[in-house]
Amino acid sequence: MTGLKLSQLCKTCGDYGFAARVEGEDLTVKAVNALEGAGAGEVSFLSNPKYAEAVARTKASAVILRDGIDLPSGVSAIRCADPYAAVTVAIIALHGYRRHPQWGLSPRAVIDPEATIGDNPNIAAGATIAAGVTIGSDCTIYPGCYIAPGARIGDDCVLFPNVVVYDHCVLGDRVTVHAGSVIGQDGLGYAPHGEKWIKIPQVGRAFIGNDVEIGANCAIDRATLGQTEIGDGTKFGNAVVIGHGAKIGPDCMLVGLVGIAGSATVGRHVTLAGQVGVGGHLKVGDNVTAGGGTAIVQDVEPGATVLGYPALPAGEWRRLAVAQHSASKWMQRVKDLERNVRELRSKLESQTGDTG
Amino acid sequence: MTGLKLSQLCKTCGDYGFAARVEGEDLTVKAVNALEGAGAGEVSFLSNPKYAEAVARTKASAVILRDGIDLPSGVSAIRCADPYAAVTVAIIALHGYRRHPQWGLSPRAVIDPEATIGDNPNIAAGATIAAGVTIGSDCTIYPGCYIAPGARIGDDCVLFPNVVVYDHCVLGDRVTVHAGSVIGQDGLGYAPHGEKWIKIPQVGRAFIGNDVEIGANCAIDRATLGQTEIGDGTKFGNAVVIGHGAKIGPDCMLVGLVGIAGSATVGRHVTLAGQVGVGGHLKVGDNVTAGGGTAIVQDVEPGATVLGYPALPAGEWRRLAVAQHSASKWMQRVKDLERNVRELRSKLESQTGDTG
Amino acid sequence: MTGLKLSQLCKTCGDYGFAARVEGEDLTVKAVNALEGAGAGEVSFLSNPKYAEAVARTKASAVILRDGIDLPSGVSAIRCADPYAAVTVAIIALHGYRRHPQWGLSPRAVIDPEATIGDNPNIAAGATIAAGVTIGSDCTIYPGCYIAPGARIGDDCVLFPNVVVYDHCVLGDRVTVHAGSVIGQDGLGYAPHGEKWIKIPQVGRAFIGNDVEIGANCAIDRATLGQTEIGDGTKFGNAVVIGHGAKIGPDCMLVGLVGIAGSATVGRHVTLAGQVGVGGHLKVGDNVTAGGGTAIVQDVEPGATVLGYPALPAGEWRRLAVAQHSASKWMQRVKDLERNVRELRSKLESQTGDTG
Repeated sequence: MTGLKLSQLCKTCGDYGFAARVEGEDLTVKAVNALEGAGAGEVSFLSNPKYAEAVARTKASAVILRDGIDLPSGVSAIRCADPYAAVTVAIIALHGYRRHPQWGLSPRAVIDPEATIGDNPNIAAGATIAAGVTIGSDCTIYPGCYIAPGARIGDDCVLFPNVVVYDHCVLGDRVTVHAGSVIGQDGLGYAPHGEKWIKIPQVGRAFIGNDVEIGANCAIDRATLGQTEIGDGTKFGNAVVIGHGAKIGPDCMLVGLVGIAGSATVGRHVTLAGQVGVGGHLKVGDNVTAGGGTAIVQDVEPGATVLGYPALPAGEWRRLAVAQHSASKWMQRVKDLERNVRELRSKLESQTGDTG
Repeated sequence: MTGLKLSQLCKTCGDYGFAARVEGEDLTVKAVNALEGAGAGEVSFLSNPKYAEAVARTKASAVILRDGIDLPSGVSAIRCADPYAAVTVAIIALHGYRRHPQWGLSPRAVIDPEATIGDNPNIAAGATIAAGVTIGSDCTIYPGCYIAPGARIGDDCVLFPNVVVYDHCVLGDRVTVHAGSVIGQDGLGYAPHGEKWIKIPQVGRAFIGNDVEIGANCAIDRATLGQTEIGDGTKFGNAVVIGHGAKIGPDCMLVGLVGIAGSATVGRHVTLAGQVGVGGHLKVGDNVTAGGGTAIVQDVEPGATVLGYPALPAGEWRRLAVAQHSASKWMQRVKDLERNVRELRSKLESQTGDTG
Repeated sequence: MTGLKLSQLCKTCGDYGFAARVEGEDLTVKAVNALEGAGAGEVSFLSNPKYAEAVARTKASAVILRDGIDLPSGVSAIRCADPYAAVTVAIIALHGYRRHPQWGLSPRAVIDPEATIGDNPNIAAGATIAAGVTIGSDCTIYPGCYIAPGARIGDDCVLFPNVVVYDHCVLGDRVTVHAGSVIGQDGLGYAPHGEKWIKIPQVGRAFIGNDVEIGANCAIDRATLGQTEIGDGTKFGNAVVIGHGAKIGPDCMLVGLVGIAGSATVGRHVTLAGQVGVGGHLKVGDNVTAGGGTAIVQDVEPGATVLGYPALPAGEWRRLAVAQHSASKWMQRVKDLERNVRELRSKLESQTGDTG
């Protein structure tokens, strides 16, 4: 890679719609790296001013940062109002996205003659495509993937190794699924019969919208009837579990180990931090944010930020946490009061001779 | 599919032992669908009266529901006391269970000559069966499954893609394991040696009873010695993790992301909702129910319903949650009392001239 | 297996540096088993004196235990100060570690000609090794594993079935990864753009130290830049999820379903029990222990033991739990005080005729 001049990176930022300017020498950089790891020929960045002291020690040739933070002499800067956006631009420009191995349509893939494969396939040895499957154009399917009968995959999708898509499930365009994730397995659909559980055929499907990215080892149930839905543009971390019939809106971010129970509804642009749980049949409104480990046990209003077990509005939860911390102090104040009141009563009674 | 008349579905309900009757025209229906998604020729259902208003808007030709809820004109009904049971019957009758691809014994499966395979095998290309494995009759094994040396699988089992069964583990009859689940990996068996961990060979096994269904991406440790056990008829959601030597009783329901630590014992017919944790060596009694995210840190009595972190009986937990919510109000009451007591004291003292 | 005499086991303990002596007949034992399951010819053990009553009922021929606990007549003992260490020695001596199937370099493995494979390979049919991969000597790679371009695996590693190592990630020597685990997938690296998420190329890697053992179905993100690190000798349970750029120190123990968010730092010899969560960018000090389900939402001092949501020092958390349990009692005391103060006020006022 020959690298790019800082001025070229600034120009690209401009193309994306935000201003950035070079300070110091207009060097050529070849890679982006973290402040601690960066060396000569690399550009780094400072997004959170909290870590400003690391700038003074960096060995990077250039740093992307806001105005007002000094650089060591000999280090160039790209100054801009949003360093995180600018470093994103720099990483895309200098590194680009992952290039997949090119298998074409491997003769060692197991592809049913009744499957339909779009243009320009990139399907590895050890992938299995069953009968009645439709796969769009420009899809990459790694070894160990299994696409079950009747499933439909859109254009420009990437399924990393060992991804499983159950029968009749649907993935939109530009969907990425990381290794080991499973889409469309049966949920816990059983009718109780005494202490036994009678399995209800799970005849619905899972439907994944466009531009969704799913982490590793996730599991998205199919619906009993109808469909489990993941909205366009939504992103999942790892080991996220979605129950049958749940509907997740567009542009959500679900971090690792989040669990959404069956038939829950999550609105648009919702952020659920790691290990958040949402109970069955609940509604989480648009633009909700839930902190790590929050247990959502009732509906959440749009726009709310919630925390805790059970989930409370963040301000209320923090007051509560403070109150809990001070519980022993309050108990002492109650004991002091009791002593005081006993004293007052005895004083009053001794004064009046009244013992009733 | 030609469909079934409503009266035929009612008759089938009768065969299962509960009464159902047609109201309105005895239509033919071809499929079951949710109230919102259903169209002409489909039968829907209303199980929870809370959602009764959706009945008025449905485009289904027929609805399964209790007495006392009106239907739009032109929509037929199947009336019965248990609509959930009746719709289960209808789904089974109209849709049936999943039909697997038929591979026979694929020549592209990797089967050790010293494995024993029962009658009527359905084993896909890309499945691997090691030496000394015994597989019963009528088993379906999808691509990417690996059955390690000495493992034993009963009759009528289904292993979805990429399921792994470690050496010497045992699955009973009619066991279903969804994609990506792993049975019998080593647990965290280490002897501490200073700050280092010495690995203890994990020479036990995992034993899965009959009629168990395991979700996607679960992991069930083998025991260090003896066996980890999953009782007959128990059902798991996705990403359920069972520690080494744990014993789960029959007919339990463990929802997604439940974690059971090593050597814990869970009784019969226990329901653990999503993300419940059970600590090591604890005993959870028969018929216990734990709400989502509950952290069980001590033994739980049979029949109890528990909630919270740490787990409390549900009623106690709810009182506690109410008390927590009102903490700031109670702190104000204590402050008011302190002010009152100061006033009284000063009044009493001014009255008596006693300042001691 | 011909078995070993108890005196031979004691000698082996001595070789490991701790004393053990035979009491009763110097029998030959063939296997180690749990107290309940053990039979003739087997040696069992009692580590936790709480379970001493099981000793009286055991059918084992010999038991490893401390001084001071009686044995039934006819049962021999190995007496020592650390029965857990001695039984570890006995399991290693009598059972040894797992022996893997021997595939050599299977002709049905898919190995890119530009991969480098060390001496004595044991790589199964259905494993895939991409271009530019380096694998050390004496490695066992089970079916369904995928090692992506540029990844590097050290010597003496074992990858159980369906393990995926993404491009350019590194595993040290003597690393064991259980089935279904994924190393180096992209983390949740997105730049927000309105409500949309712009993917940042994840150009860092994941780096796994020597002697690490990773459970089944774990997922370890690669870093955006630089590397996610797992320190030497660290052990993971199942479904453990590590966010991008996190650094886990050496000799840690992370139990099942633990989630570490991006850029968090965990020190050396830290134990995180099941379902513990650590928030992004936090620091957990050396030798910290966190109880099951603990939500770590701020930095934790070295050596601390923490519990609860949010995490508190264990002693504080227990006092808090007691205080919560007694909340209704304290509320009653406040009500009693209020009544008392009203009475005193009215008494005082009636006495003085002062109603102000």
